[in-house]
Amino acid sequence: MASMKALVYNGPHSKKWTDVPKPKILKPTDAIVKVTATTICGTDLHILKGDVPEVSKGRILGHEGIGIIDSVGESVASFKKGDRVLMSCITSCGSCVYCSRNLQSHCLDGGWILGHLIDGTQAEYVRIPFADNSLYSIPKKLKDESVLCLSDALPTGYEVGVLAANVQPGDTVAIIGAGPVGLSVLMTTQFFSPAIIIMIDTDDMRLEASKELGATHTINPTKLKSSSTTNTSSALLDAISAIKAEVDGPDVPANQQAKPGVDVAIECVGIPQTFDTCQQIIAPGGRIANVGVHGSKVDLQLQDLWIKNIQISTGLVSANTTRALLKSVQSNKIKPDLLVTHKFNLSDIERAYEVFGRAAEEKAIKVLLQVDD
Amino acid sequence: MASMKALVYNGPHSKKWTDVPKPKILKPTDAIVKVTATTICGTDLHILKGDVPEVSKGRILGHEGIGIIDSVGESVASFKKGDRVLMSCITSCGSCVYCSRNLQSHCLDGGWILGHLIDGTQAEYVRIPFADNSLYSIPKKLKDESVLCLSDALPTGYEVGVLAANVQPGDTVAIIGAGPVGLSVLMTTQFFSPAIIIMIDTDDMRLEASKELGATHTINPTKLKSSSTTNTSSALLDAISAIKAEVDGPDVPANQQAKPGVDVAIECVGIPQTFDTCQQIIAPGGRIANVGVHGSKVDLQLQDLWIKNIQISTGLVSANTTRALLKSVQSNKIKPDLLVTHKFNLSDIERAYEVFGRAAEEKAIKVLLQVDD
Amino acid sequence: MASMKALVYNGPHSKKWTDVPKPKILKPTDAIVKVTATTICGTDLHILKGDVPEVSKGRILGHEGIGIIDSVGESVASFKKGDRVLMSCITSCGSCVYCSRNLQSHCLDGGWILGHLIDGTQAEYVRIPFADNSLYSIPKKLKDESVLCLSDALPTGYEVGVLAANVQPGDTVAIIGAGPVGLSVLMTTQFFSPAIIIMIDTDDMRLEASKELGATHTINPTKLKSSSTTNTSSALLDAISAIKAEVDGPDVPANQQAKPGVDVAIECVGIPQTFDTCQQIIAPGGRIANVGVHGSKVDLQLQDLWIKNIQISTGLVSANTTRALLKSVQSNKIKPDLLVTHKFNLSDIERAYEVFGRAAEEKAIKVLLQVDD
Amino acid sequence: MASMKALVYNGPHSKKWTDVPKPKILKPTDAIVKVTATTICGTDLHILKGDVPEVSKGRILGHEGIGIIDSVGESVASFKKGDRVLMSCITSCGSCVYCSRNLQSHCLDGGWILGHLIDGTQAEYVRIPFADNSLYSIPKKLKDESVLCLSDALPTGYEVGVLAANVQPGDTVAIIGAGPVGLSVLMTTQFFSPAIIIMIDTDDMRLEASKELGATHTINPTKLKSSSTTNTSSALLDAISAIKAEVDGPDVPANQQAKPGVDVAIECVGIPQTFDTCQQIIAPGGRIANVGVHGSKVDLQLQDLWIKNIQISTGLVSANTTRALLKSVQSNKIKPDLLVTHKFNLSDIERAYEVFGRAAEEKAIKVLLQVDD
Repeated sequence: MASMKALVYNGPHSKKWTDVPKPKILKPTDAIVKVTATTICGTDLHILKGDVPEVSKGRILGHEGIGIIDSVGESVASFKKGDRVLMSCITSCGSCVYCSRNLQSHCLDGGWILGHLIDGTQAEYVRIPFADNSLYSIPKKLKDESVLCLSDALPTGYEVGVLAANVQPGDTVAIIGAGPVGLSVLMTTQFFSPAIIIMIDTDDMRLEASKELGATHTINPTKLKSSSTTNTSSALLDAISAIKAEVDGPDVPANQQAKPGVDVAIECVGIPQTFDTCQQIIAPGGRIANVGVHGSKVDLQLQDLWIKNIQISTGLVSANTTRALLKSVQSNKIKPDLLVTHKFNLSDIERAYEVFGRAAEEKAIKVLLQVDD
Repeated sequence: MASMKALVYNGPHSKKWTDVPKPKILKPTDAIVKVTATTICGTDLHILKGDVPEVSKGRILGHEGIGIIDSVGESVASFKKGDRVLMSCITSCGSCVYCSRNLQSHCLDGGWILGHLIDGTQAEYVRIPFADNSLYSIPKKLKDESVLCLSDALPTGYEVGVLAANVQPGDTVAIIGAGPVGLSVLMTTQFFSPAIIIMIDTDDMRLEASKELGATHTINPTKLKSSSTTNTSSALLDAISAIKAEVDGPDVPANQQAKPGVDVAIECVGIPQTFDTCQQIIAPGGRIANVGVHGSKVDLQLQDLWIKNIQISTGLVSANTTRALLKSVQSNKIKPDLLVTHKFNLSDIERAYEVFGRAAEEKAIKVLLQVDD
Repeated sequence: MASMKALVYNGPHSKKWTDVPKPKILKPTDAIVKVTATTICGTDLHILKGDVPEVSKGRILGHEGIGIIDSVGESVASFKKGDRVLMSCITSCGSCVYCSRNLQSHCLDGGWILGHLIDGTQAEYVRIPFADNSLYSIPKKLKDESVLCLSDALPTGYEVGVLAANVQPGDTVAIIGAGPVGLSVLMTTQFFSPAIIIMIDTDDMRLEASKELGATHTINPTKLKSSSTTNTSSALLDAISAIKAEVDGPDVPANQQAKPGVDVAIECVGIPQTFDTCQQIIAPGGRIANVGVHGSKVDLQLQDLWIKNIQISTGLVSANTTRALLKSVQSNKIKPDLLVTHKFNLSDIERAYEVFGRAAEEKAIKVLLQVDD
Repeated sequence: MASMKALVYNGPHSKKWTDVPKPKILKPTDAIVKVTATTICGTDLHILKGDVPEVSKGRILGHEGIGIIDSVGESVASFKKGDRVLMSCITSCGSCVYCSRNLQSHCLDGGWILGHLIDGTQAEYVRIPFADNSLYSIPKKLKDESVLCLSDALPTGYEVGVLAANVQPGDTVAIIGAGPVGLSVLMTTQFFSPAIIIMIDTDDMRLEASKELGATHTINPTKLKSSSTTNTSSALLDAISAIKAEVDGPDVPANQQAKPGVDVAIECVGIPQTFDTCQQIIAPGGRIANVGVHGSKVDLQLQDLWIKNIQISTGLVSANTTRALLKSVQSNKIKPDLLVTHKFNLSDIERAYEVFGRAAEEKAIKVLLQVDD
């Protein structure tokens, strides 16, 4: 039996780059992909903490990556040995009641299973079920670092953040959290030309990066000047009002001025405080899109919000925008390679985990793990 | 100075049907309407408890009604003395940034002001600002009781409930709370032909009324048979699964069956428990519309919901569907007169408040207050 | 080699119920279905006239039907031998750029191919490619005649007519042509509760049937009373105005009355005159949905329509509403069995073609061809 | 009686800058605006040719402009003497059935009336009905040339072209006609980040300007290299396919390649040939938006298009995006001043008409007519 190297989860706080059997075609719809590039997601860190009990010992981690088709099952129609492909974090059967509703995240025979319920992409080879629906061919001219984030971060930010919040030209958008997903929201929210994009984060380095990626304004809430009697949330709302006045001008008549707050708030952290921030800064008629992964319940201020005609959305990515995102990369509308800050050989993955685990101090956004030649 | 009778609020727990000055045209866009029919809203009871501190002493209550135009300001183009009109609970200037976004509930010079920030309709006469935008002519063939609920309850249920939740043909819809607004949701959700409509309430009489108004199923959660170890919420989800199985049949293959829960849950009560019910019964990809008026914050179970691709909406009615609702009454698609259970002379309004204050025991849904001839 | 009976096309005006080889599984995604019920479509008559040159001699006709799974390829996940299934007229791979856009009608490896580019359903057995995406299990309680029209006519009317035209509660809808597809539009347009539904046809028998199926009004344009100087189109517009006035009442102020014409016109015939009718009766802001199959170009009156803010849509069915339609049949929202007017044994198919070829005089809408026991 | 100068239409081919009475407030909703900037529209040239018979002799032309409020009627709430305002080409009452449907172009007491049914803006002063709905305050920092085109060309291109065609990120968009409205479509289509924007025109100078304004590709159909046997339309389709291949790359598998043609075609000329071009280049599932003003009927190739699932839209601008466009100018998302190629004093308007009448040879797009100090 052929073997390969892979990163294997051995229970909380334990993982190892080790020898395991090479995967084989199990169903006619499968493909085996030789991994040429992969990366580490914040979710992988959660798994390693033991926060995702569905992941059993012995599981190969990873749900993002690029590779070369090694073999395909006999029903696979779109791909053949040698094709260069992007692997989506979402596996979809293409037939079930959820796939037919374009909600592949809830596919009855798929969804997020890679590196979770089946072996993943942090390995030399990986088996991809329903290959025709879960892989995308990559145009030759695009480099690995330009498409790597299309496995997960980019479609997550775009679908669960930007599209769910229905960003419109002229809008004022706040993004809370400038990590890889927050920055993916930042990139893709520009597809719809909002007038103002405010990135909110407590890390000035990430705010600086946000400016380069298109944020029109940034706010570090820990540095807001406020009188001793003012709490953070009203200081935040004041800062937003000042930004809006700067753009709209002070010379607009009262009955042409919208009420304070943002049209769209996109939560990209996953803790109660940042979800609360969204509630505090949302204007009447506004939309809050929750992208963060939450581990506990939050307070919903319905006594204030019931009358504000707002909308809150949640969700896991369905990855049904991957083709459109590939076109946007090809036509230079987005440059996801700017999110890749560090590169390692795939065999150095344990060191890459260490660096990514100290992302703030290492100034890391996404790490690219390449196969060493 | 001409005088008239009106119901005047004199602070918490105090109101009186008494003499006050008759209103006059203040702006060219005003109309004075002679009230021929009005009603009492649950919100009026809240005001009388002192829950709405913006209502000052001396205010005439009421934000619903029908009447005859008595006089109009010189800019009013659509109406003239003698026209029979429906008065909307929402006043809209038609020009501000919110009116132009079709969000009249947040009109910068209007919104819900009748019987709240300006004198209301529980009176012999009432001044209606922006008459061209806030009144609707009533076809002769429609009786007062057929259109009275179009002032508030019907458009509230339709816009904030049914339209916000985007009810679709074939959906499973749960409505939580069978009061006047919940029953308005029930009537108008049928515009979109959901396959299953489940009314959930603890009052069997109201559940019975719901069946007559089109609910396909009803659930009284206090009467669910459940093993001692099962809590109410899972008993509720089981009951819903049983209803869905009854309609879909047990012979559907596993990969064609949606996950448990409803596509749409519409909250029409306004307390934490009922909002929680919505979260417990919502299926992946589902929509929760909050119609209830809440006095306190609620728990949002984001640790479960972040991955479920749901949408939550809130809002005050904008009443921009009033014309469409009038057409639906004219063509017998809805019969809002069925909501009117009691009739009084307007001068008996204090007694009507007593009866409506004991709605459950009086089996009252909406009371019609008519002008005595 | 096993043989079976099937209706084989032998070039224009020639067809025969004859012996042919029984189909076999060719790909892992195929299923072989034993046909228990099928029907004849207007398109089949077009093929027989020679109007569809892509259909080659020797082709088995038919793209609608119900059957029992006889065998499945090894990738088929949803079905097994013995399952009772509905066969969709649209075959979809579920993976291509069009399927992923929910435009299965243009599937790069499917679309309308049954009885067109591959052998069809007017046979004892049929091979269905991509079975998981192209078949639907039928709940036991539903009879064949209740679901037969879900193969083609119902989803065609619903998707290409009703959904494309975005019918809304309160709308005035005109349907031009009361054949099987026009009546399918009539049934499914009621999902959205328009105030007025006007069926326009020249056959009084079909107009009568329309009334029973939910048309609020009917017009036979050949019988409109008009002065000698008035042409048909203005007589038609006058008739529509009269219907609208009857519903809206003559007592609506001028500035609350919409301009003449219908909100929605749905063309279900496929000739220049009926498309022209749609243009003549459409109101500003209206939507024309073309469902008819056209053989020649038509005049578009852009000199009148450029300013009217209208929308025109065309299309072949994608059949992605089939699941929702099945739910609507189960919950009695639609009763497609009412479209079935004649029944034959499948072996009498040549006689059934004769009857269906004289549909008007035979008062035939849809014929059910059953397997003789 | 005060007098002023204005450009008066005196029947076909006759106009004069002459003395006329200064306008006065006629209704409480009116404003009188002192014109500081105006421009000439292609429609004004049509009127002068006699193509718009509703324009009576003695009418002051012009429906675009900027000015200072001179006086307001007593219902006007948003503006006061001295305010600097943009005048919309669309007048809207804000109350009628069309305004309430956000279809102000068909306002029952407004629509396009300026310089058409009532006196217009090519004058020293102009009366604006329903001032609160038809004027927009201009932030001080914006110059006249930056907002002038928001009176008509920009919202027309945006609403009737871009929004009606539902341009999406990743789309291939063709714009037919690079005049002022075509270039407005070009600017505003970039709000939605299509991957490819192809400008099609026969004037190389305008194609050059298009490149500077954001077209990714241009085609001059008169210069397409084609074999003698190939007609223009297939040459055009070939050119588009070549552009798409260049962006998508030749290395995409067959079942991931869309069929030939563009996702969106926007007609900005108004003649049968250019509308025909749209039909020839539209891909399945595509949208054609007609923005051009047509004087005669066109051929609609329904024999080809019935099966293509396309959508065609027409319309007059409603100008309900003016506020959003102002925000987009303020935040530098669009730079409409680039459309202004020539400047004149208002008193030189007759000369300006001459220049604009020879737009191609004068390389004129929009002319700015300023009040001479």
